[in-house]
Amino acid sequence: MKQKQLILNERPNGLPDERTFQFEDVEVGNPEAGELLLKTLFVSVDPYMRGRMSDGPSYIEPFEVGKPLNGGVVSQVIESKSDQFDKGDIVTGHLAFQEYHVVSDNHVRKVQTFGLRPSVALGPLGMPGLTAYFGMMHIGEPKAGETVVVSGAAGAVGQIAGQLAKRAGAKVVGIVGSKEKARYITEILGFDDVVEYKEGNVAKQLAEACPDGIDVYYENVGGEISDAVWPLLNTFARVPVCGAISSYNLEEGEYDIGLRVQQYLIKSRAKLQGFIVGDFQADYKEAYEVLGKAIANGELKFEETIVDGFYAIPDAFLGLFSGENIGKQLVKVADSE
Amino acid sequence: MKQKQLILNERPNGLPDERTFQFEDVEVGNPEAGELLLKTLFVSVDPYMRGRMSDGPSYIEPFEVGKPLNGGVVSQVIESKSDQFDKGDIVTGHLAFQEYHVVSDNHVRKVQTFGLRPSVALGPLGMPGLTAYFGMMHIGEPKAGETVVVSGAAGAVGQIAGQLAKRAGAKVVGIVGSKEKARYITEILGFDDVVEYKEGNVAKQLAEACPDGIDVYYENVGGEISDAVWPLLNTFARVPVCGAISSYNLEEGEYDIGLRVQQYLIKSRAKLQGFIVGDFQADYKEAYEVLGKAIANGELKFEETIVDGFYAIPDAFLGLFSGENIGKQLVKVADSE
Repeated sequence: MKQKQLILNERPNGLPDERTFQFEDVEVGNPEAGELLLKTLFVSVDPYMRGRMSDGPSYIEPFEVGKPLNGGVVSQVIESKSDQFDKGDIVTGHLAFQEYHVVSDNHVRKVQTFGLRPSVALGPLGMPGLTAYFGMMHIGEPKAGETVVVSGAAGAVGQIAGQLAKRAGAKVVGIVGSKEKARYITEILGFDDVVEYKEGNVAKQLAEACPDGIDVYYENVGGEISDAVWPLLNTFARVPVCGAISSYNLEEGEYDIGLRVQQYLIKSRAKLQGFIVGDFQADYKEAYEVLGKAIANGELKFEETIVDGFYAIPDAFLGLFSGENIGKQLVKVADSE
Repeated sequence: MKQKQLILNERPNGLPDERTFQFEDVEVGNPEAGELLLKTLFVSVDPYMRGRMSDGPSYIEPFEVGKPLNGGVVSQVIESKSDQFDKGDIVTGHLAFQEYHVVSDNHVRKVQTFGLRPSVALGPLGMPGLTAYFGMMHIGEPKAGETVVVSGAAGAVGQIAGQLAKRAGAKVVGIVGSKEKARYITEILGFDDVVEYKEGNVAKQLAEACPDGIDVYYENVGGEISDAVWPLLNTFARVPVCGAISSYNLEEGEYDIGLRVQQYLIKSRAKLQGFIVGDFQADYKEAYEVLGKAIANGELKFEETIVDGFYAIPDAFLGLFSGENIGKQLVKVADSE
């Protein structure tokens, strides 16, 4: 028995096109002991798959050229040679994009659907739902009365992320790209307000929708939309960086203007955190002890650049920006007596 | 008795110049009960003062036009009407930039100098030292064997931050702007390697100095130098964002190309954190329970956009980037039996 399989034909530069994909006919095969024959019911397509079509460093290995794409799949057990599954069971797993699979029974899990379509295992009860949950609840940590902004708000992740923030008592503003999506997130999902970025002046729309600033920004898009968010961030705001879809299809020459730090944060799962020394006032004693001891015994070295006279202050200050100082820049105003 | 005072004459647009500053003669005054007469020995000039010369929103109030600048000062007690201080004591505090002060005795603290110049209270044992300590040790958290990069490495904060990372057992690379600074941080401070950004190709220099990637980036400068850091960030890297000196003197029209997210992170002390769902595998059960219950009782709503047929996968995938889907984008391959 033959089936269709979807192959990565060549790596795209920029937006994928017809050369990127190819359909091939392959054998279905027969299950052996401990294996299942599955029929594919639903295939999930997700923005992160674009990254796997390129071969740069990432948290996940790239697709191989000439090999099938793979991702989230919901399937039905057609034939079971496992005592864990029965014929007819609905299962989900991360599998090649093809119409049938012969897989070991530990490659898939049964789907709990709560009476809904089994496709929920690829949406709110699958990777997108979990992504929304951890990003919003473990990194964003919205609190009652706070303002939460979600970009890509009508997408698979955004629709869940925003509702989780509502449940936490926050005011939730979604950023979307159409009137239909705007209606969906406000009328059906209960978001408090919406910014339609294709209407222009995102900064102004956002400022009006968020008069108290932004405490959590759930980042799905990157680029210019997110640049309009930064000036509105409140003190100790949290930004879970989940996606940066605006940059996924940049061509090589466009990186300089289009790429922001977000894409690198996702790849590395790094944390950027702004701070000022006053945030740590409760721990000043600890710092003075460590620094004082190390300086007193000469273990910690330092340099000063000292200029003389009260009138030298402006020039000493300006010198900081041309890098004239080594170590601390000081102005000596008078000698001690 | 008269003294000199340094006034903010007008707010600068871009780099401050002679119009920014003005010196005025003011009365010294006499201390009353609980007060001290101080003679200024050292004045600290720091990059963050540039932000206070503008009047945008910030973590600290702007300087007032026509009023004196203020900042870190080390002074000697000339006359004491307080039982907390004696004539001759060396003190430090945040005071107006002038030659003498009459202040309440709770506005300053005595300086512990470890036999060194009292100016240490404005450097390694003052605000810059504490800033280096908390940014590196509480946010950067360098571990033995990790690679730590410090920009502005020969500055007041950078020189201490890098040495603290060395003490923690990390390999430390500094980014500086001159050969003299490069020698200082490697030969005197013991940094392992150095990148001289004015020599060009920072990305290549950095990649060579950090063959194992970057685990902690102590950010003092922002701009293009830091953009060369992002591609080298290792998994779960930490970036304490302390300063962005490259952007402090941008003129209004230069914001679009010059401003990065760093300046906003400092103002807000916000946290940007990249993540992927797999980072939270240990908590999947928790998420499935919360999401499952809320979906089952209809509290959590969701939408799916479903297209039909295995051949529809490429178009469904491409539609993600033009925003054609509401909710989860799926491809239905077959009906269940």
